[in-house]
Amino acid sequence: MSLSEFDLIARLREGVVSAVHDSAIIEGIGDDAAVVRVREGHDLVVAVDTLVEGRHFFAGTDPASIAHKALAVNLSDLAAMGAVPRWATLSLTLPNADAGWLDDFIAGWLPLAQQHGVALIGGDTTAGPLSVSVQLMGEVLVGKQVSRHGANVGDSIWVTGTLGDAALALHLLNADKAVPTALAEALHRPRPPVGFGRQLPTLASAAIDVSDGLAADLGHICHASGVGASIYMESLPRSADFNHQVPDDWARLALGGDDYQLCFCTGLDDTAVLQLAESTDVSVTRIGDVVDGSGVQCILSDGSIASIEDTGFDHFNRKQS
Amino acid sequence: MSLSEFDLIARLREGVVSAVHDSAIIEGIGDDAAVVRVREGHDLVVAVDTLVEGRHFFAGTDPASIAHKALAVNLSDLAAMGAVPRWATLSLTLPNADAGWLDDFIAGWLPLAQQHGVALIGGDTTAGPLSVSVQLMGEVLVGKQVSRHGANVGDSIWVTGTLGDAALALHLLNADKAVPTALAEALHRPRPPVGFGRQLPTLASAAIDVSDGLAADLGHICHASGVGASIYMESLPRSADFNHQVPDDWARLALGGDDYQLCFCTGLDDTAVLQLAESTDVSVTRIGDVVDGSGVQCILSDGSIASIEDTGFDHFNRKQS
Repeated sequence: MSLSEFDLIARLREGVVSAVHDSAIIEGIGDDAAVVRVREGHDLVVAVDTLVEGRHFFAGTDPASIAHKALAVNLSDLAAMGAVPRWATLSLTLPNADAGWLDDFIAGWLPLAQQHGVALIGGDTTAGPLSVSVQLMGEVLVGKQVSRHGANVGDSIWVTGTLGDAALALHLLNADKAVPTALAEALHRPRPPVGFGRQLPTLASAAIDVSDGLAADLGHICHASGVGASIYMESLPRSADFNHQVPDDWARLALGGDDYQLCFCTGLDDTAVLQLAESTDVSVTRIGDVVDGSGVQCILSDGSIASIEDTGFDHFNRKQS
Repeated sequence: MSLSEFDLIARLREGVVSAVHDSAIIEGIGDDAAVVRVREGHDLVVAVDTLVEGRHFFAGTDPASIAHKALAVNLSDLAAMGAVPRWATLSLTLPNADAGWLDDFIAGWLPLAQQHGVALIGGDTTAGPLSVSVQLMGEVLVGKQVSRHGANVGDSIWVTGTLGDAALALHLLNADKAVPTALAEALHRPRPPVGFGRQLPTLASAAIDVSDGLAADLGHICHASGVGASIYMESLPRSADFNHQVPDDWARLALGGDDYQLCFCTGLDDTAVLQLAESTDVSVTRIGDVVDGSGVQCILSDGSIASIEDTGFDHFNRKQS
């Protein structure tokens, strides 16, 4: 069934508005703009990310996965700031105003949005090449946001979850090989550690979400904080599927993208970090230390030091088309 | 010159960040998300609009006009809520990461952003078919937003500026005819009455921005408010160029799109409205009355009444390709 823009918005509105109740929404979808109330003592945190067909997802990807991922990548950004996600706007560019496509999209959006209490408050739809832009707004206690520029020499460096799974899934897909379910989920349905992100203000000196690969993203923390980082390649957390498929592919762990895990630095001792992680059902792994200098250096299993460029790893072409 | 995504963002950041100083920005471009502080006693107002090449602007349109319009259409939405614009995020999808294109884009963005004190606080860039998505955030005093659902029977109905200019420009362009400068400006560089919008909370019972054509947009107010509207076709404000080209094209005035003027209802007397308008250098015209019933009816010059559909006007194909 083909719909007008008004029909599309109405269907989106009906599909999602009742799903998340939020008394802070003064005006939701359906006016010129939405009006929401930020809680007293909180600042507003805003992220935006766009997924384009053929670039961030393959043509023909199921709409539910696209919706899930479009929300997830923004949840990941807010988690890295230590923020609580609240409200989203959605800009949908669709080749065809197809009702079935939209229903599937909503079906992929809702569970993740409900899980994290994210209300859709506005959006627009346009005819054009398939592209999904989500802006996510959240709150953080005044002054408690976690940025990239606070890392201190002597801090330990940690990541949540496992690395490299999405990059490996993409590699297998591009090679027309079978993709284990857990790896496919990591690529298509990432689940950023939102609950753990809310704990970051009490523990992290700096944080970033791992979306462009650990080395690149940790490099941003180093650059912003004026420090260097040493990471122990053997300590990088790997999933069972990753270990089974490519046990020695350290470079993919450190350079692969689309992880949507958190990398953070902390001055707290390891026990405190592990206890906080346990309370949120997220695994965390200490992978290195903040050091004097600049850039990210890799400590290999034999104790030798290599820059990430020297690992001989050919950068992924992450284009999905 | 072709740039990487990081280069694009850096160039955007350098180009625009220093342009608008705003102490409410706690973290701007360059982290996982931006952090801003909404003023006490204010609610946050959020609009999002996407412009796609071939749909909202012709292929080959100069980047400065695209930037101006992408911001203007959102300023128009915030003005219609009675809000003060503050912060924007930008999602740019570009076929080529061209430095010159981006510089032109920034050159078109900056003057309008500076005029209205809008700071760019975040964004992302992606390779893909040309598309520009802007989300604009602003503030309104708690409880003072102007929505579509407050119109009362007996209110007068007004519009700012003139109508039909952009629709006429598009018509001339599509017919390969010369377009007078003022009409071309209306299409490519709309200037929504942002200052007047800030006055709406003190005067309007309901308001909307005229983007899909007066009849359609006033129809939204009627639907949301549970009222009808009578508009006097002879009173619809026309520019000198419009009068010169198509003096009797009432239907284009009432149905043409892309006006980015404000339509509002008020219970105040005409003198009060005119005085407020004068203080903001915006012209306003009383065009009709809120009445019992539903939908928009047109009063023609001979006093006869027609529904807007009966004017014999063929809906524009507003696709620009």
